[in-house]
Amino acid sequence: MGDSVRLSIYPGTFDPITLGHLDIVERALTLFDRVIVLLALNSDKKPLFSVEERMEMIRDAVSSLDRVEVAQWSGLVVNYCRSVGAQTIIRGLRAVSDFEYEFQIALMNRKQWPPIDTVYLMPDEKFTYLSSSIVREVARHGGRIECFVTPLVKTKLEEKLI
Amino acid sequence: MGDSVRLSIYPGTFDPITLGHLDIVERALTLFDRVIVLLALNSDKKPLFSVEERMEMIRDAVSSLDRVEVAQWSGLVVNYCRSVGAQTIIRGLRAVSDFEYEFQIALMNRKQWPPIDTVYLMPDEKFTYLSSSIVREVARHGGRIECFVTPLVKTKLEEKLI
Amino acid sequence: MGDSVRLSIYPGTFDPITLGHLDIVERALTLFDRVIVLLALNSDKKPLFSVEERMEMIRDAVSSLDRVEVAQWSGLVVNYCRSVGAQTIIRGLRAVSDFEYEFQIALMNRKQWPPIDTVYLMPDEKFTYLSSSIVREVARHGGRIECFVTPLVKTKLEEKLI
Amino acid sequence: MGDSVRLSIYPGTFDPITLGHLDIVERALTLFDRVIVLLALNSDKKPLFSVEERMEMIRDAVSSLDRVEVAQWSGLVVNYCRSVGAQTIIRGLRAVSDFEYEFQIALMNRKQWPPIDTVYLMPDEKFTYLSSSIVREVARHGGRIECFVTPLVKTKLEEKLI
Amino acid sequence: MGDSVRLSIYPGTFDPITLGHLDIVERALTLFDRVIVLLALNSDKKPLFSVEERMEMIRDAVSSLDRVEVAQWSGLVVNYCRSVGAQTIIRGLRAVSDFEYEFQIALMNRKQWPPIDTVYLMPDEKFTYLSSSIVREVARHGGRIECFVTPLVKTKLEEKLI
Amino acid sequence: MGDSVRLSIYPGTFDPITLGHLDIVERALTLFDRVIVLLALNSDKKPLFSVEERMEMIRDAVSSLDRVEVAQWSGLVVNYCRSVGAQTIIRGLRAVSDFEYEFQIALMNRKQWPPIDTVYLMPDEKFTYLSSSIVREVARHGGRIECFVTPLVKTKLEEKLI
Repeated sequence: MGDSVRLSIYPGTFDPITLGHLDIVERALTLFDRVIVLLALNSDKKPLFSVEERMEMIRDAVSSLDRVEVAQWSGLVVNYCRSVGAQTIIRGLRAVSDFEYEFQIALMNRKQWPPIDTVYLMPDEKFTYLSSSIVREVARHGGRIECFVTPLVKTKLEEKLI
Repeated sequence: MGDSVRLSIYPGTFDPITLGHLDIVERALTLFDRVIVLLALNSDKKPLFSVEERMEMIRDAVSSLDRVEVAQWSGLVVNYCRSVGAQTIIRGLRAVSDFEYEFQIALMNRKQWPPIDTVYLMPDEKFTYLSSSIVREVARHGGRIECFVTPLVKTKLEEKLI
Repeated sequence: MGDSVRLSIYPGTFDPITLGHLDIVERALTLFDRVIVLLALNSDKKPLFSVEERMEMIRDAVSSLDRVEVAQWSGLVVNYCRSVGAQTIIRGLRAVSDFEYEFQIALMNRKQWPPIDTVYLMPDEKFTYLSSSIVREVARHGGRIECFVTPLVKTKLEEKLI
Repeated sequence: MGDSVRLSIYPGTFDPITLGHLDIVERALTLFDRVIVLLALNSDKKPLFSVEERMEMIRDAVSSLDRVEVAQWSGLVVNYCRSVGAQTIIRGLRAVSDFEYEFQIALMNRKQWPPIDTVYLMPDEKFTYLSSSIVREVARHGGRIECFVTPLVKTKLEEKLI
Repeated sequence: MGDSVRLSIYPGTFDPITLGHLDIVERALTLFDRVIVLLALNSDKKPLFSVEERMEMIRDAVSSLDRVEVAQWSGLVVNYCRSVGAQTIIRGLRAVSDFEYEFQIALMNRKQWPPIDTVYLMPDEKFTYLSSSIVREVARHGGRIECFVTPLVKTKLEEKLI
Repeated sequence: MGDSVRLSIYPGTFDPITLGHLDIVERALTLFDRVIVLLALNSDKKPLFSVEERMEMIRDAVSSLDRVEVAQWSGLVVNYCRSVGAQTIIRGLRAVSDFEYEFQIALMNRKQWPPIDTVYLMPDEKFTYLSSSIVREVARHGGRIECFVTPLVKTKLEEKLI
């Protein structure tokens, strides 16, 4: 086992990526050899940022991290994992309200492909209550967001919303 | 009391009906003489399937069950109950996140018609985390859904989504 | 089915029985022909009242209710149900914090005897936050408890605690 | 400290204001010298009632209460607080599901302006499960709403929905 | 109203007092003219520290705060409030698991004395997950506790536990 | 990174070890090169089984698993991790009620030793509601436990409890 490369997938809608997401990526790197940040496309939700904008912000945010790649996918996340041979999905767990939805997804994933497992990591305390949606809301009303996102995301949010 | 017919209403949006819903209907049949599966129309939500499609899938799913009827209603569920003389509403309870919304609804129902009571049943363990919305999401992305829905629902979902 | 007698078991430690418990018994009587209030003995917990005292208070509280019996049992509740041919356990569900423990118990019961089902009922709004332990605590500190328990329970609590 | 005027802000979307909101305002008046009910405009959500209609219903509901004012604001609530010198935000806390979202907002507010604090109050038991959205839903289906809203709100809901 | 003195009670078992408790006291001082930290004695629980030790640690912790007093009480907290004319109880709310118990207590208090209200405050983010019990547990195993308690509490814990 | 040995600690009281615990160990082995199951001694709780009995049952349960070791420790778990150079703690997450306590512990661990991270894994669906305490309770009342524990644990529980 020690000689194979451990790969993990960190999926999300990243609309936009926050410092909380980045904190999870960095924690995942202590557990895995490679982490793929996967922009999961969901025809249902109407995101604030286009796929291209979100990919650009993710790439910028992880540019200094070795062993991290970025990809996008419009099918089931678990099928992407299978296609690249990744048996682990990474998820950040911040709050009780995340918990049940995450479990529902994880159980459904196991039904789709039994070898898959989900690993839940806890972000730094200071990101516990951070989410993309609250960042969008604060930005929309002209609040301060620099302690929650990268400089590029801040600029993009201001262009888009103010 | 032993000679009157005990009737219960199982309301929902059933978009589409799942094997978890069916499991609740079967459990309700051990408690009641008759169960009416009630398609509750809600002008607010935009369902994936039309009323006719949902009714067809519900009728097909319960066709082998005696003592089960199917109906639709666009008013308050509690008013339907009153009109047919049913004092009990059946609800499946799967997760903590259902819990408070269900209680809010049940209390509101009692305000509307005090004799009404809601009976909560727990589905089989293997359906604990199943919901219509996760079935739609998996179907939309081409995942396997045959262990969650009837064959007719599977066919309908594939026609609609893929 | 209409001609058999529907029987249900309402188990608890009833230390002491409250008006919230009684409210659940009355609701159960609209669903079942007979309800057995079952004092479940648990060697683990140290109750405030003895078995005899608790049985006396339960019997007094339900004395005006036809079709209700009272019993005690020191084994698994589900084995009692099987022995008397009752396929339904009644439980009151008041708060999120009850929820998961109740589900754990219900799933364990199904493992012990698959035909068993648990029916959750919601007490009247005014008993939502009532529990035996909070009644004991208030009584212990000399607070008013007459709106939460029967007169006999009130007297017994005062004898025991003040 | 005893000689300065204590001011608090009670923000919300009030779509429409309910008796539960009013109960919180009255409790806040025992803590503060002045309370401003703040209609927080959120370009994201599509309310049932216009800003003017909501303001009219709020003004009518609080007309008999001294020391209460009504205002509207389209920026961050915390910036409104800063602009009027109010260090306290009032929020009603009814259910577990409110809890985490409220904390997320409160922490974000402290990041925006550290002196701000949020004070959570519990409405009367009988309003525990009341919300604007359930009132809208019941009104839409022709249910009874007079025990949840003021007469003016009842009239407005009926004009709008039935 | 502006000329009467606003008084609030902050009850707890304080076994021992932590920096999280102190943070709540300081926040309460921005809302009230006087705050009484009330050591509520509960014959049920077996505390680690005696009443005298706990009182000493509380007094030491609040010694630099004007307008704060310390008291002890073995009856219902709400009766203490009534006896000193305080209509407000202060509680820190850290986590979902606190929430329902707090509400149960608050509703019971209103039954005992209707004018009483409970005001919930949120501690600083860095104390969100801090409790007396986790501090005792860490101290017992020789862990670092200086960022969670005052120097006196640290010394007392080390004397008691190591 | 690929050439160092990844080590993880799975701490617990294991009173007794269940098949749910074992399921977590097996999942951890797909992520780590070595897993140490750590019996964490807690002078506070009174376990049903002695340290020796619990160690024997754990060793028996993992005897067929390569790369798993068993140890015991009476200090802070995080200090054990530091002493053996393990930066990861494994925890099973089954239910919402576990969630907040787990987060409290994990944050406290990071305060003690910042490099430590906790990885949460979800057991198989069929173990979701399984716990040592419910196994003890069922065994105490003579219920069936063979689908929840190993044969050795079953024998030990029967010797101890029946």
